[in-house]
Amino acid sequence: MTQPAPVPAPAADGFVDRHVGPRGLELDHMLATVGAPTLEALMDQAVPAGIRTPRALALPAARSEAEVQAHLRGLAGRNEVLTTMIGLGYHGTVTPPVVRRNVLENPAWYTAYTPYQPEISQGRLEALLNFQTVVADLTGLPVAGASLLDEATAVTEAVLLMRRAVKGRPDGVVVVDSQCLPQTLTVLRGRAEAIGLPLDVVDLTDGLPDDGRDVIGVVLQQLATSGQVRDLRPVIAAAHARDAMVTVAADLLSLTLLTPPGELGADVAVGSAQRFGVPLFYGGPHAAFMSVRQGLERMLPGRLVGVSRDLDGAPAYRLALQTREQHIRREKATSNICTAQALLAVAASFYAVHHGPDGLRRIAQQVHDHARTLADGVRADGGHVVHDHLFDTVLVRVPGAAEQVVARAREAGINLRRVDDDHVAATLDEVTTAAHVATVRELLRATHPAEAGGVPGSGAPVSLVPDGALARTSTYLEHPTFHRYRSETALVRYMRRLADKDLALDRTMIPLGSCTMKLNAAVEMEPISWPGFADLHPFVPADQARGYAELVGELEGWLADVTGYAEVSVQPNAGSQGELAGLLAIREYHRDRGQGQRDVCLIPASAHGTNAASAVLAGMRVVVVRTAPDGEVDLDHLRTELDVHADDVAAIMITYPSTHGVYEEHVREVCDLVHGAGGQVYIDGANLNALVGYAQPGELGGDVSHLNLHKTFCIPHGGGGPGVGPVAVAEHLAPYLPGRGAPQVSAAPYGSAGILPISWAYVALMGADGLRRATATAVLAANYVATRLAGHYPVLFTGPGGRVAHECILDLRPLTKATGVTAEDVAKRLIDYGFHAPTLSFPVAGTLMVEPTESEDLAELDRFCEAMVAIRHEIAQVQDGTWPLAASPLRGAPHTAAAVTDEEWTAPYSRQTAVFPVPGLRHDKYWPPVRRIDQAAGDRNLVCACPPIEEYA
Amino acid sequence: MTQPAPVPAPAADGFVDRHVGPRGLELDHMLATVGAPTLEALMDQAVPAGIRTPRALALPAARSEAEVQAHLRGLAGRNEVLTTMIGLGYHGTVTPPVVRRNVLENPAWYTAYTPYQPEISQGRLEALLNFQTVVADLTGLPVAGASLLDEATAVTEAVLLMRRAVKGRPDGVVVVDSQCLPQTLTVLRGRAEAIGLPLDVVDLTDGLPDDGRDVIGVVLQQLATSGQVRDLRPVIAAAHARDAMVTVAADLLSLTLLTPPGELGADVAVGSAQRFGVPLFYGGPHAAFMSVRQGLERMLPGRLVGVSRDLDGAPAYRLALQTREQHIRREKATSNICTAQALLAVAASFYAVHHGPDGLRRIAQQVHDHARTLADGVRADGGHVVHDHLFDTVLVRVPGAAEQVVARAREAGINLRRVDDDHVAATLDEVTTAAHVATVRELLRATHPAEAGGVPGSGAPVSLVPDGALARTSTYLEHPTFHRYRSETALVRYMRRLADKDLALDRTMIPLGSCTMKLNAAVEMEPISWPGFADLHPFVPADQARGYAELVGELEGWLADVTGYAEVSVQPNAGSQGELAGLLAIREYHRDRGQGQRDVCLIPASAHGTNAASAVLAGMRVVVVRTAPDGEVDLDHLRTELDVHADDVAAIMITYPSTHGVYEEHVREVCDLVHGAGGQVYIDGANLNALVGYAQPGELGGDVSHLNLHKTFCIPHGGGGPGVGPVAVAEHLAPYLPGRGAPQVSAAPYGSAGILPISWAYVALMGADGLRRATATAVLAANYVATRLAGHYPVLFTGPGGRVAHECILDLRPLTKATGVTAEDVAKRLIDYGFHAPTLSFPVAGTLMVEPTESEDLAELDRFCEAMVAIRHEIAQVQDGTWPLAASPLRGAPHTAAAVTDEEWTAPYSRQTAVFPVPGLRHDKYWPPVRRIDQAAGDRNLVCACPPIEEYA
Repeated sequence: MTQPAPVPAPAADGFVDRHVGPRGLELDHMLATVGAPTLEALMDQAVPAGIRTPRALALPAARSEAEVQAHLRGLAGRNEVLTTMIGLGYHGTVTPPVVRRNVLENPAWYTAYTPYQPEISQGRLEALLNFQTVVADLTGLPVAGASLLDEATAVTEAVLLMRRAVKGRPDGVVVVDSQCLPQTLTVLRGRAEAIGLPLDVVDLTDGLPDDGRDVIGVVLQQLATSGQVRDLRPVIAAAHARDAMVTVAADLLSLTLLTPPGELGADVAVGSAQRFGVPLFYGGPHAAFMSVRQGLERMLPGRLVGVSRDLDGAPAYRLALQTREQHIRREKATSNICTAQALLAVAASFYAVHHGPDGLRRIAQQVHDHARTLADGVRADGGHVVHDHLFDTVLVRVPGAAEQVVARAREAGINLRRVDDDHVAATLDEVTTAAHVATVRELLRATHPAEAGGVPGSGAPVSLVPDGALARTSTYLEHPTFHRYRSETALVRYMRRLADKDLALDRTMIPLGSCTMKLNAAVEMEPISWPGFADLHPFVPADQARGYAELVGELEGWLADVTGYAEVSVQPNAGSQGELAGLLAIREYHRDRGQGQRDVCLIPASAHGTNAASAVLAGMRVVVVRTAPDGEVDLDHLRTELDVHADDVAAIMITYPSTHGVYEEHVREVCDLVHGAGGQVYIDGANLNALVGYAQPGELGGDVSHLNLHKTFCIPHGGGGPGVGPVAVAEHLAPYLPGRGAPQVSAAPYGSAGILPISWAYVALMGADGLRRATATAVLAANYVATRLAGHYPVLFTGPGGRVAHECILDLRPLTKATGVTAEDVAKRLIDYGFHAPTLSFPVAGTLMVEPTESEDLAELDRFCEAMVAIRHEIAQVQDGTWPLAASPLRGAPHTAAAVTDEEWTAPYSRQTAVFPVPGLRHDKYWPPVRRIDQAAGDRNLVCACPPIEEYA
Repeated sequence: MTQPAPVPAPAADGFVDRHVGPRGLELDHMLATVGAPTLEALMDQAVPAGIRTPRALALPAARSEAEVQAHLRGLAGRNEVLTTMIGLGYHGTVTPPVVRRNVLENPAWYTAYTPYQPEISQGRLEALLNFQTVVADLTGLPVAGASLLDEATAVTEAVLLMRRAVKGRPDGVVVVDSQCLPQTLTVLRGRAEAIGLPLDVVDLTDGLPDDGRDVIGVVLQQLATSGQVRDLRPVIAAAHARDAMVTVAADLLSLTLLTPPGELGADVAVGSAQRFGVPLFYGGPHAAFMSVRQGLERMLPGRLVGVSRDLDGAPAYRLALQTREQHIRREKATSNICTAQALLAVAASFYAVHHGPDGLRRIAQQVHDHARTLADGVRADGGHVVHDHLFDTVLVRVPGAAEQVVARAREAGINLRRVDDDHVAATLDEVTTAAHVATVRELLRATHPAEAGGVPGSGAPVSLVPDGALARTSTYLEHPTFHRYRSETALVRYMRRLADKDLALDRTMIPLGSCTMKLNAAVEMEPISWPGFADLHPFVPADQARGYAELVGELEGWLADVTGYAEVSVQPNAGSQGELAGLLAIREYHRDRGQGQRDVCLIPASAHGTNAASAVLAGMRVVVVRTAPDGEVDLDHLRTELDVHADDVAAIMITYPSTHGVYEEHVREVCDLVHGAGGQVYIDGANLNALVGYAQPGELGGDVSHLNLHKTFCIPHGGGGPGVGPVAVAEHLAPYLPGRGAPQVSAAPYGSAGILPISWAYVALMGADGLRRATATAVLAANYVATRLAGHYPVLFTGPGGRVAHECILDLRPLTKATGVTAEDVAKRLIDYGFHAPTLSFPVAGTLMVEPTESEDLAELDRFCEAMVAIRHEIAQVQDGTWPLAASPLRGAPHTAAAVTDEEWTAPYSRQTAVFPVPGLRHDKYWPPVRRIDQAAGDRNLVCACPPIEEYA
């Protein structure tokens, strides 16, 4: 036995080494392969000197996992969790522990990517289809999408949908119920104003006023903010009579008892699925929903899961109607939504699977019974309950005493809603107990005349609906899925079965260019389940959320430091919302300076499609700037366009490093040119993982950026959301952050506050040095892959130093031309090798963009490179005629177990070539549940709810 | 659309319906199939009137999931978690969040069964092999077992091993270091006394005294309880010179810095792996370990994982040397250990995989550095640090002031150990910070002469070892497994890959007769992770553990109520320990009544093998009582044996319902006969799941029982432990509960306290009615399976009403005779159908015992029955000559993906028959990682540590 190696110096508990994959000898090997002596030398080659920041980050030193969790426990402890009856679209709910543990806390679910590769996403697609079925059934409208960001933005999307659907009525007004949720009105007003859509906010309780204007749409809140349950049929009929469409914002739980919007005549229903078991999370993330009547399905914003068939004719799920999406339609897009709230929609769907229709109805009935008990009790005590018909909210008139009632309730551990000086409201929910009801009644009694010797109230008992026809009679959730998994044993197995169908980060690298699928560490994830973070209502008084205030403040400060901006707002709950907030800030800035005419947004041809969509929704005109073949902005063309639009350039939106995965040298020049023309520079933060610690968008010339916390800052992708997209601004734009001088873009003040502890923890664990090391290692990993694969597939772009940034584009087009094998074939064949495909055909059609990130160790990078090389050899066999393309494993991919165990095997390659093309797969094989899916067939014959079980026979 | 069904009455949130699988129409169908009108009618048929209890359970009403978690949060909050430096074998440790989330909180790991079916257990077997490698490497002894219950019982097992190994020296004494942990001494004294083994407890610091007696073994504690690091080589040499064997109790973490026991010359090393990331859990569960020198491996108690080959020659793991085990050797067994602490051993192994040798060494160095800093500081302050050489424990002389120092420390949030009036000790650990060290130093300063104007201490700095040769120079954990998964990304995937190899309850029913594999609900599991339960040291003052006191008190009361006994102790941390505790209680009872000669334990032939082993270890002689062919005790033979042993019958041990799975009618008569002869009745609680709410062992005539909380009360099996085996006694035996009048059987006062919240939650969630329903449904499920399968496989035993109890035995022997197909073939073929096999060849060789439990719903019961029927058809094809047995899918089972995709396929059945014999498998297929494993080959060529990677090429 020999002397052990000397002990390395203790560096906290070494979280940086947990997060960053390659280390020690691995790092040396990678550096040798790419031909760089050190990480820093590589960065010197890759990152042009001109763009590097001289400033060191001012972040606190890296802390250990134990220290970070201890600190977060302290913050969680400073959030005070009371019984909260504030309502307003956010409700106490019991997250079933089985859902929390097996879905929300299970990396198989939360580390998955958006299901663009449907063959490896059948599990989450089925769960999202269940969500769509829940929404469609409960709202009584046949087609529902796979979730939206929050109720307020969902209403906005519904309004945009109505405007599109009515067509050609540019002066039409949208009439909005003043009984809509206040945050809905706030967000909708801002968004409508940005695009010049006239809104009319009026109380629609007594009908639709007719002032002679052309009404194109009406928005109603089925459960009025006052708590009243109204008969909406007359307003809906009147709207339809005037050729207006109708959106009803509805509460899913109440729809188990109330006639659903579809049966009331609504064209569109929207709302939040939060109270289906999703924690309050201080405002988010939660899944909002939208469903529409037949004929509108092709106008639905966001994602829609549909049913199609695979190569062998088996039913298979996939995202439907993708051609509607912003990344394809760019400036012609009608919505900039690209993230959904997949994980939360999945959780809500399992809540429905767990409870079934009878269980949901029982919960609704219990909530309503508590509300009736309270209302009748208050009336019996002589109090003034304002409405006779209500579901869960009891509005009580307490002249002049609202403040005092709310204060006393807080002493009793209950948050009531202060509506105005004279009214308080209590919204009851699944966690309300009889004792809570008794306490509130008791508190209110003190303000009633009876207490002061007055007479007891004479009000009749309250009830659910003003008219029996408004009570639900139709059935819902009759599909077997909502009946088969009611025991926890069966449910756990169903969850596992679905998870096992999918490939997520817990099984393989997901080398998705531009998506930065890196480690979501358990230490970062655990705190979001703690009651001190999970169970806070977004509208509690500030002194109950001191822990969050500190966390948000610190995180915003750290992000500002990292990006080189003056201030950050974490409010936007998706990258697209961050973009919008940034553009709205620019817009307001110009207007305040008397430059309101500036409405042109320059966007390079290679930009993310969302950029253009967001610009349109910020009321801007998109002008495309050419990109040179090397991916850089064409400076000459930029100068030309700046000349053409000299007086009306509002902004340019660029991505850095560019979507081509290289550090462009001329970014400062681009910024200077635009600034010179009076425009602002928006730098998309999608690729920030290539910059942290080395360069700063705010220092490169950017005025505003959004960040994707779900890319660079470790919030997991959740199978397609949640995302978080903070907006970062230079000092002159700080007054225009959302909710200050510019419109609020999310329903909740801090957006998806509940998952911010993840990013906070990441920064705290890494410290400045760790973040730098992550960046450099990500760049090394991309260059390592590029170096290893360049001999097999051309690497499309490299920067001035001959280096790629944090991702590289492999060009399949020459091979496609020579052999017919497409980038898609390679993507599907990678599934047989156990990999999620790289980004397909973005930003350049016919290519694969690979982003390995810093978290993948050498073994995994090599496994990927070896798979790609093996596939290249397979392509060679097509090329040399060994295999006809149509009968090649490339076209046959992915191969299911059923296919390769069939008696008949006519393929010119062997069964083992099909499924075990490299030996390592024998010890670790992912079996795709379906073969290649026919996308077009599914779009032709749209099925977006759970198909009958017989389909699977 | 039609009117929905009326809403059923809300019953809390219906946890009973979550736990119990069949409901509504399913229940009706099952009752119709078995031919019983109602559940109660079935129970009337199955359970003889004579054994039923008239008494209703006095448990509190069922509470909802939310209520139960809220209550448990309250209890956790009443446990006060201070920084604890008490040491004594329990240490603060950082459970890596990645291990907590992906192993301890992952049903794929915790719901697995003991790996007796190795083909579906390769994942956990690999993890346990890693554990064995960690122990073997760190202790410097070549063969380590797969964990034992706790350090104190592990020392006891080591003493028993030494006694066996020296052979034929009946008067030999075992000399035990008085510096062993106090709880080790307590447990060892009791256990030695029970079997008449003389012990000599002396301070061995200055050598082995020679009083002329024959010393057969010596037990040393490498880190003395006083904290001192001593040179043990002289004592070990002296012991060997006197033909004595040597056991060293060691601390795994310190072994990264200290010369390991194997290199010091020890024959056996034991200890606890708790500080490798396993929470303190108020005493347990933790994995203890034992390793031995070459030549002793076949004497190791408990389980041992070894490497063998499968049918295709691939390396495969399985439990080795099973022929040593108590279930086979019965009264010839040398240990009654049958549960291990698999889940905790797995967690500890992943801690080592996570940190690697350098990380572990760094942690150890940090702990030691803190200890040195404290000791040197105290000396610098003029204090009296007793020892010059120490690892983590600083013993300080504080004449007359110990009480005061400890009290002041508590005020500062730190628990120190009060050694005696004049000494305190501080044991530092992985969670100790420099601030903690400074605080303790400061506290101690107040008691030093320096404070009172005295002179500062002149002591030299302390150090680790008295002799450089005692510092570790040998390497450890060089296997790639401890180097490959150091990034969290890689580790998560490794954990997932291992989990995916195994079948646990999260994928399929595990119909194991006598093992009661039922739902382990998330709501029950979550609380054990909460710091208030997880982070408490077992020896904290009682006022810091008020929550635990209440929980334990209530649970013991509830279990007494359920079993009809007067009192319960939860101390035994396995069923086998509960048995031992029960028998020791009987023994002490007889002795106190002057009947010390009563030492015969009657055991029916059909009993669990552990019964006999426990009796032997309680110092009793086993006399076997015949069982009739129907499984009942042969009353005539019992009478005969009682006559023969009239004066020396101590007890009878019976199981009710019998291990044959029927409710015997004559149990009261058996009890009366034994009582009449002056004996006590021990009723094994293994089958309590068939009794709860209907009959009570304490009321049937039992004087004492043990329960298996991991069977009836929902503690998960953890892949082979932890178990919890409380002992329940009638009033006259209450004074003899462990730790009262009888020996303590576990190291910690409440045994595996940390997992008791699981059983507490189960009882609280179910209430009396729910528990009754569970029992009746379990009996219905067994009768349903028996009814459906009886036409295909004879059901071996039924009770007087023609019913089985909660399990049924399928007799394969006639088919084996007719076709050669064995019960094992069926068990292995079930793997191809996606099932874990039922219990194989217990209690009757050549049979399968099926226990479906109440948690399986009708769909799963049917899936199992259909698989068994399909297999019966396969057997028919062997019978009719379609397939030769050797070339049948039964003998070829299980089939791997590699096997069925081979180019060559010569079998007379198709590939799809091999792996998709029923259509449902196409949607949900478990792929075994290996084919049938050759057990004998592995035992012949024993490999019990991680094999070289090349083996897998």
